[in-house]
Amino acid sequence: MIEEKVMNEKEINDELLLGLLESGDLESFREEFLAQHPYDQATFYAKAEQEIRHQLYQYLSPKEMADIFEAIELDDDEYEDLFKEINVHYAADLLSAMYTDDAVDILNKLNKDQVAAYLTIMDKESARQIKDLLHYEEYTAGSIMTTEFVSIPENSTVRSAMNILRNAAPNAETIYYVFVVDEDKRLSGIVTLRDLIISDEDTLIRSIMNERVVSVSVGEDQEEVARMIKDYDFLAMPVIDFQNHLLGIITVDDIIDVLDEEASDDYSKLAAVSDMDTFDRGPFTAAKKRLPWLILLTFLGMLTANLMGMFEATLDKVALLAVFIPLIAGMAGNSGTQALAVAVRGIATGDIEEESKMKLLFREAGTGLITGVVCGLVVVGLVYFWKGELLIGALVGTAVMSSIFVATLAGSFIPLLIHRLNIDPAVASGPFITTLNDIISILIYLGLATTFLNQL
Amino acid sequence: MIEEKVMNEKEINDELLLGLLESGDLESFREEFLAQHPYDQATFYAKAEQEIRHQLYQYLSPKEMADIFEAIELDDDEYEDLFKEINVHYAADLLSAMYTDDAVDILNKLNKDQVAAYLTIMDKESARQIKDLLHYEEYTAGSIMTTEFVSIPENSTVRSAMNILRNAAPNAETIYYVFVVDEDKRLSGIVTLRDLIISDEDTLIRSIMNERVVSVSVGEDQEEVARMIKDYDFLAMPVIDFQNHLLGIITVDDIIDVLDEEASDDYSKLAAVSDMDTFDRGPFTAAKKRLPWLILLTFLGMLTANLMGMFEATLDKVALLAVFIPLIAGMAGNSGTQALAVAVRGIATGDIEEESKMKLLFREAGTGLITGVVCGLVVVGLVYFWKGELLIGALVGTAVMSSIFVATLAGSFIPLLIHRLNIDPAVASGPFITTLNDIISILIYLGLATTFLNQL
Repeated sequence: MIEEKVMNEKEINDELLLGLLESGDLESFREEFLAQHPYDQATFYAKAEQEIRHQLYQYLSPKEMADIFEAIELDDDEYEDLFKEINVHYAADLLSAMYTDDAVDILNKLNKDQVAAYLTIMDKESARQIKDLLHYEEYTAGSIMTTEFVSIPENSTVRSAMNILRNAAPNAETIYYVFVVDEDKRLSGIVTLRDLIISDEDTLIRSIMNERVVSVSVGEDQEEVARMIKDYDFLAMPVIDFQNHLLGIITVDDIIDVLDEEASDDYSKLAAVSDMDTFDRGPFTAAKKRLPWLILLTFLGMLTANLMGMFEATLDKVALLAVFIPLIAGMAGNSGTQALAVAVRGIATGDIEEESKMKLLFREAGTGLITGVVCGLVVVGLVYFWKGELLIGALVGTAVMSSIFVATLAGSFIPLLIHRLNIDPAVASGPFITTLNDIISILIYLGLATTFLNQL
Repeated sequence: MIEEKVMNEKEINDELLLGLLESGDLESFREEFLAQHPYDQATFYAKAEQEIRHQLYQYLSPKEMADIFEAIELDDDEYEDLFKEINVHYAADLLSAMYTDDAVDILNKLNKDQVAAYLTIMDKESARQIKDLLHYEEYTAGSIMTTEFVSIPENSTVRSAMNILRNAAPNAETIYYVFVVDEDKRLSGIVTLRDLIISDEDTLIRSIMNERVVSVSVGEDQEEVARMIKDYDFLAMPVIDFQNHLLGIITVDDIIDVLDEEASDDYSKLAAVSDMDTFDRGPFTAAKKRLPWLILLTFLGMLTANLMGMFEATLDKVALLAVFIPLIAGMAGNSGTQALAVAVRGIATGDIEEESKMKLLFREAGTGLITGVVCGLVVVGLVYFWKGELLIGALVGTAVMSSIFVATLAGSFIPLLIHRLNIDPAVASGPFITTLNDIISILIYLGLATTFLNQL
């Protein structure tokens, strides 16, 4: 209900803005448009037709457009075309007016010629700051930090700190955390604006600052930074080099985006679907994103069929055997995926450390044994009551038990192994583990069946 | 490397603290311990043996302990036992010293007798605030909001607002957003501390406040609140009742926890593994959490086997048919899981609304057709080159094509359907869709095979 009301308000509002644009009423449009939150402005811009977008570049300054681009969320491949339609000088001013970290985010999505052009035209100071950040590898603290932070010397007073803050307020990304540096620009403490406003104006910063600053190294993985900000409830974290020099800060709003991305990324990988496959694309785009995985899995499936082909003689003799193949492969797949999910999340959240890996494997071996025996016994019972076949039941039950045991172990061992090889364990996605477990479980089942064929 | 260094520092530090506790050096322990960040204090407390915990209750005040409990992250079922070991008066003081939202979070995890006891002993004002919040349903804005916010009247000046802030600073959860209310306590605007410190002291709040406040209704789903804070980059959001009265605020740190929980929740459901199945439990606990799913899936698997049993005669005649069953079932499972992941995430992020559901279904039908035809042709080719069997190849290819088409459509239709029934679509987890698709694909394949049996 509330959702609908909000939607309708937004729609009415969009109509109003479009009407003002159509009538060319620049003043009224600017007044109405700029009173809105940048996120709402961004939604309007993202939904607009090209013609309307061109009108917006006329009506809004590069600085006003920069606010929109800081709030906008587009797919990675949309930025290049969007920037091609914007005048290069306007675009350079726009990028230079943005917070450096956000500008770098966008530049990383454009082609090299575009980036070079903007950096050449842009004012020197902004270009230098952006170039500094462009160096850092993707997914590190350096790549998501901003250089627009407020730092003050240790020996200043609360009064002078407040003056520095007032001057920095329009440009700094946050003024609620103030970073204290020594004469060599090394990070020595942190003061919050909360501390400042309750302190006497003549107090020395040195005496109220918190010296136990939690900081991250510039090369640290962004997921680790996200985990720390989440655990410590920080609004921002300082980024330092190996000599403790303060290089930049990472703010909580960027961290929320990182957490959201990583979560959706892990989820998508478990389902072997590209993260870019959002619901608003056409069927051809969606098919193009999914086909590489599906075709790869077709080949893996043919491998399974090939292996099964080795047992054609056995299947020829006892056709009933084939009937239980989906059950056995399915159970192996399900238990493997469960073990995989626990291991991948444990690694992603940092809960699983080097020394606890063996512990996890032993734990999973035990879990696989217990679940295998229980499910195996259930299957023996079901086959006996359904078909009256105790021998086939025992065979299928044994296969289910061994398959669950092996699949559970593989589901935790494989992500740990590829994590050791410094690959993101989430790529050991569900379908791969499932296909692997298909092969293992069918080999166990038909191997056992062939061995005991004379008894069947 | 860095990770290890941090670990070692923490370990050394823990040793030091334990040594001070053992020697009974209260002063040095308090000095060392309280200098640390509450999150680190919480980690130390959570890892400590019962004996050490009892010593901590002696050495720390309820207020100091409250900071620890605000930062701590335990499994839901651990709180009850933990609070049983704490003196009731100490526990009541501890809960009353916590931010109301965090205290309510903990009380929701205790049994009713414990809650009643604490609320009776606690000071009246805290008990009233907690009781107010306990009313709200879980997972709503009301259940995660806090009542420790700063509000100021419209007609105050910046000077008086700053004085209110200074007084509120020690207790308010955030002082960076100040909420402006009219004489009836209705929310009329918002001012940030940034606005306040750059404004002249005699300025009226009314003239600098932002009147376009984005707020949420108290009954709103917490996921929707999280999405808004993420999109708008807010540090806090006001919560209102239907008459626009300001009831509380939700801060960004609580929202990060919500986002993290929801993401991990969806992921766990896709793998049919309980969220509580963390890696540090024993194999029996883990098996107990996973077995209900596995046993349910065993029964579903037996259903598949039963259906296949109907085609035993066909399988008996052409044993080669059985060899392709895992391939066909696997392809249906994989494409179904891909479609499921896209639909579930689209629903969770709010990207899929009522009017776009039909669009999604048409899109997925198209996608299923394209991927089905491509994979089907690949399979025909592979079977022809491997076995030289064009007819079997055509049969398997047709089955793959139809299975992928149906599975893709089912993978998006089923979550949409159960979302309509107001059930969380993530429970249509991978294994269920996979089992359903097993059944459909095998019926298609063996049905086709039986029909054209004379040609084989």
